[in-house]
Amino acid sequence: MTEIKVAVLGAAGRMGTQTCAAVEAAEGLSLVAKLDKGDPITTGSLSGAEVVVDFTVPSAAEANVHAVLDAGAHAVVGTTGWDDASRGRVADHLDRINAGRSDGGLGVLIAPNFGLSAVLAMTLAAKAARFFESAEVIELHHPDKVDAPSGTARHTAAAVSAARAKAGLPASPDATETGWDARGADVDGVRVHAVRLRGLVAHEEVLLGNPGEQLVIRQDSFDRSSFMPGVLVAVRAVVGRPGLTVGLEHVLDLT
Amino acid sequence: MTEIKVAVLGAAGRMGTQTCAAVEAAEGLSLVAKLDKGDPITTGSLSGAEVVVDFTVPSAAEANVHAVLDAGAHAVVGTTGWDDASRGRVADHLDRINAGRSDGGLGVLIAPNFGLSAVLAMTLAAKAARFFESAEVIELHHPDKVDAPSGTARHTAAAVSAARAKAGLPASPDATETGWDARGADVDGVRVHAVRLRGLVAHEEVLLGNPGEQLVIRQDSFDRSSFMPGVLVAVRAVVGRPGLTVGLEHVLDLT
Amino acid sequence: MTEIKVAVLGAAGRMGTQTCAAVEAAEGLSLVAKLDKGDPITTGSLSGAEVVVDFTVPSAAEANVHAVLDAGAHAVVGTTGWDDASRGRVADHLDRINAGRSDGGLGVLIAPNFGLSAVLAMTLAAKAARFFESAEVIELHHPDKVDAPSGTARHTAAAVSAARAKAGLPASPDATETGWDARGADVDGVRVHAVRLRGLVAHEEVLLGNPGEQLVIRQDSFDRSSFMPGVLVAVRAVVGRPGLTVGLEHVLDLT
Amino acid sequence: MTEIKVAVLGAAGRMGTQTCAAVEAAEGLSLVAKLDKGDPITTGSLSGAEVVVDFTVPSAAEANVHAVLDAGAHAVVGTTGWDDASRGRVADHLDRINAGRSDGGLGVLIAPNFGLSAVLAMTLAAKAARFFESAEVIELHHPDKVDAPSGTARHTAAAVSAARAKAGLPASPDATETGWDARGADVDGVRVHAVRLRGLVAHEEVLLGNPGEQLVIRQDSFDRSSFMPGVLVAVRAVVGRPGLTVGLEHVLDLT
Repeated sequence: MTEIKVAVLGAAGRMGTQTCAAVEAAEGLSLVAKLDKGDPITTGSLSGAEVVVDFTVPSAAEANVHAVLDAGAHAVVGTTGWDDASRGRVADHLDRINAGRSDGGLGVLIAPNFGLSAVLAMTLAAKAARFFESAEVIELHHPDKVDAPSGTARHTAAAVSAARAKAGLPASPDATETGWDARGADVDGVRVHAVRLRGLVAHEEVLLGNPGEQLVIRQDSFDRSSFMPGVLVAVRAVVGRPGLTVGLEHVLDLT
Repeated sequence: MTEIKVAVLGAAGRMGTQTCAAVEAAEGLSLVAKLDKGDPITTGSLSGAEVVVDFTVPSAAEANVHAVLDAGAHAVVGTTGWDDASRGRVADHLDRINAGRSDGGLGVLIAPNFGLSAVLAMTLAAKAARFFESAEVIELHHPDKVDAPSGTARHTAAAVSAARAKAGLPASPDATETGWDARGADVDGVRVHAVRLRGLVAHEEVLLGNPGEQLVIRQDSFDRSSFMPGVLVAVRAVVGRPGLTVGLEHVLDLT
Repeated sequence: MTEIKVAVLGAAGRMGTQTCAAVEAAEGLSLVAKLDKGDPITTGSLSGAEVVVDFTVPSAAEANVHAVLDAGAHAVVGTTGWDDASRGRVADHLDRINAGRSDGGLGVLIAPNFGLSAVLAMTLAAKAARFFESAEVIELHHPDKVDAPSGTARHTAAAVSAARAKAGLPASPDATETGWDARGADVDGVRVHAVRLRGLVAHEEVLLGNPGEQLVIRQDSFDRSSFMPGVLVAVRAVVGRPGLTVGLEHVLDLT
Repeated sequence: MTEIKVAVLGAAGRMGTQTCAAVEAAEGLSLVAKLDKGDPITTGSLSGAEVVVDFTVPSAAEANVHAVLDAGAHAVVGTTGWDDASRGRVADHLDRINAGRSDGGLGVLIAPNFGLSAVLAMTLAAKAARFFESAEVIELHHPDKVDAPSGTARHTAAAVSAARAKAGLPASPDATETGWDARGADVDGVRVHAVRLRGLVAHEEVLLGNPGEQLVIRQDSFDRSSFMPGVLVAVRAVVGRPGLTVGLEHVLDLT
């Protein structure tokens, strides 16, 4: 098996440093370039990289992806801050580039979350949701987090809600008359509770209930190192997936 | 060991029936009278019972306790609906009766919850609370419950809050800026979250957090049968505890 | 939508009684016959049932299925005690019957477990297993259970093990040198722990671990009523699934 | 309030470094000396410290404690490797020193575990154990651990077992006939299960069960930083506790 050549943008940052180490340690991947702020992104500076991983800053990410594509490489993007407009521009750019290619073309994978356990919890909960009468989400984080509920919990609740709607399920039963402030936020009809506790990092539970039974899918992210397996999955997958993909769940084959 | 003679009021009701069976099966207790709606409560009808257990209705419970005391027996009360005024009248009545006795006198134990796991969860959480920076409560019930959060969760949060205050702890850290609707109800400064899920009965978790560690005390009430061990603890304890006691936790020796 | 006509064998038994009630309450199904021990199984006695549910006894189940097929109906079987030989005879019988039909033919669905949460926990854990370095299973049951670990836990561990092997994963890391008796049973290389605790019914947890993260899939069966949603899923599915199917997981569309 | 002056032995080690930082940040404590391997332990080198914390190596700890006592200071010891003989010698030395003092004398606190959540889990489980028919322990650790079950789990099971025995409880019910290898290690009659999973650090669950109810006490140690609150509790407590104390639980006032 020939190795996939990988470059990292933002290589000196916290996530970039870990990515460089993870790529170097991974079977079948080789790290060929480490770029940071101010370094030009060109065919030359990327040293023949086939996949470029971007862990930079929101203000730079879109331009970086365009430069990576112009240099003929696939892109895996962990930098956050993408909106529909910037995603649309990348998709258009990809279409133009791939139109002239006979090999399927380049791919861009933007992942708001590389945590395998988090992405799997969301995806598996959505698969199971249509079999249950009730569904709620609890997310638990460190107390320095400023927003509630977490983006991951919002996505999870939305995915669970969509799966329920598609299956024609009515709303989860709820006889609550008093005390709605204890019942969490309503995200597309799914109640989401946010716990903030010193000592925790990032955790999520999806609770699904039927008469006499319960299914709970829980994930714990204890540490940033937990993102690396997901980054490696993305690097290996993007090579065979032309066009724009948003979300790691689309490259996890769960069928 | 001589047996404790027990009578049950509301003996034909759901809880009364279980109490009769539990007393009959218990070592050291004997069931001497089963009374129900309309039956007079007298020395005669109680057949020499030393302890009378009341599982009737809120409108009858206070009068029942007065009659039990007048008949010279101790009372264990599981019927809910007590307010400060009715508790005060029972306490006064007890004082008058016990004043004229050299043996310590009669006892009344009113317990809003006979679930040992629920009472222990609350009590142990309160003992542990002062050692932790953060504290939150999650209660989980069947979706037919009309109030949130549960009374047990409110009591638990209040006990945890009081223990924190006594130890001079500041508020739990919380950087939340947006999304307060996901952060649960504020009960004396402790956040309480209420989950409603088909299949569940009555469950509670107290989460306590410090840098790098967490203590979770969880209790599950799967079934009404779970109240009987607590009723038996109460029957055995009330004999040696003159005066009014509110809460099963006071007769569980946890020191 | 025309209703599916359903008959129940073992209708007076514990599971049969619940099945009759569940079918009668279900949308799109109608209960047309209730048979019990000694009742003949014929086109006439089945009153035109398209699907027949068998909750009888191991010694009767195979003969019942043959009779159901001869009467031209699909079968859903919850009775346990099937071995390879009896499954093989049913499969052969089905082949002969279906060979002469242009409509796809009859189906038989044998399910050792109708608990949706149990079947989903096993299936989802197997889907997720290949993304994690470590995997273990904990099953928790009431203390009157005579065998350990539970059949469900064995199946789950085997499914997780197979998924890991297919993905080329090495054994879960384990530096244990002393105390192997605390490390559970080895089922195809996956450690399985059995807890026996008064108050519990049937519960299972699959723990999957990577550096810095964990995914836990837990299911709770609190009550036998929890099997009914799975029975209804089976009844609706068997109509469109000719031939022999073993395991409810094959008719849950989780893609 | 005058500050307690604290010195740290093994100040350059992993735990020592954290202890120095924790003492410096703590209200009411001041760090007056940092000693490491080779530094003499004398009144002079300790700079007037009233409490000396030892995080060195098993081979040095006993001699260190004797030197600390000779210098007139209290000792808090986190270094492991103590046996009955070395504890006995320290106790004797303390008796001789304290005999000639009118102020109560010096104290030594040896703590095998400074994790508050771990110590509390053990202590609270032991308090609750006598109210439940069944008890089991699950401990979960990273897969590089060589021994099973963990020392903390063994202590917990022993404490639970002792509490059950004192209350006259029979053995936990267990009908297991086959599959004992899944039922965990037997520690004083309490079953202890050891899970080893990549991503975990050190976690423990005590499960207590009665008919229809369960109490679960769980603790998570995510990080070594979690030991510092316990170290500070010990430093503050040892000043008022003459003689030898083994175990942090004895200075946590849980009544």
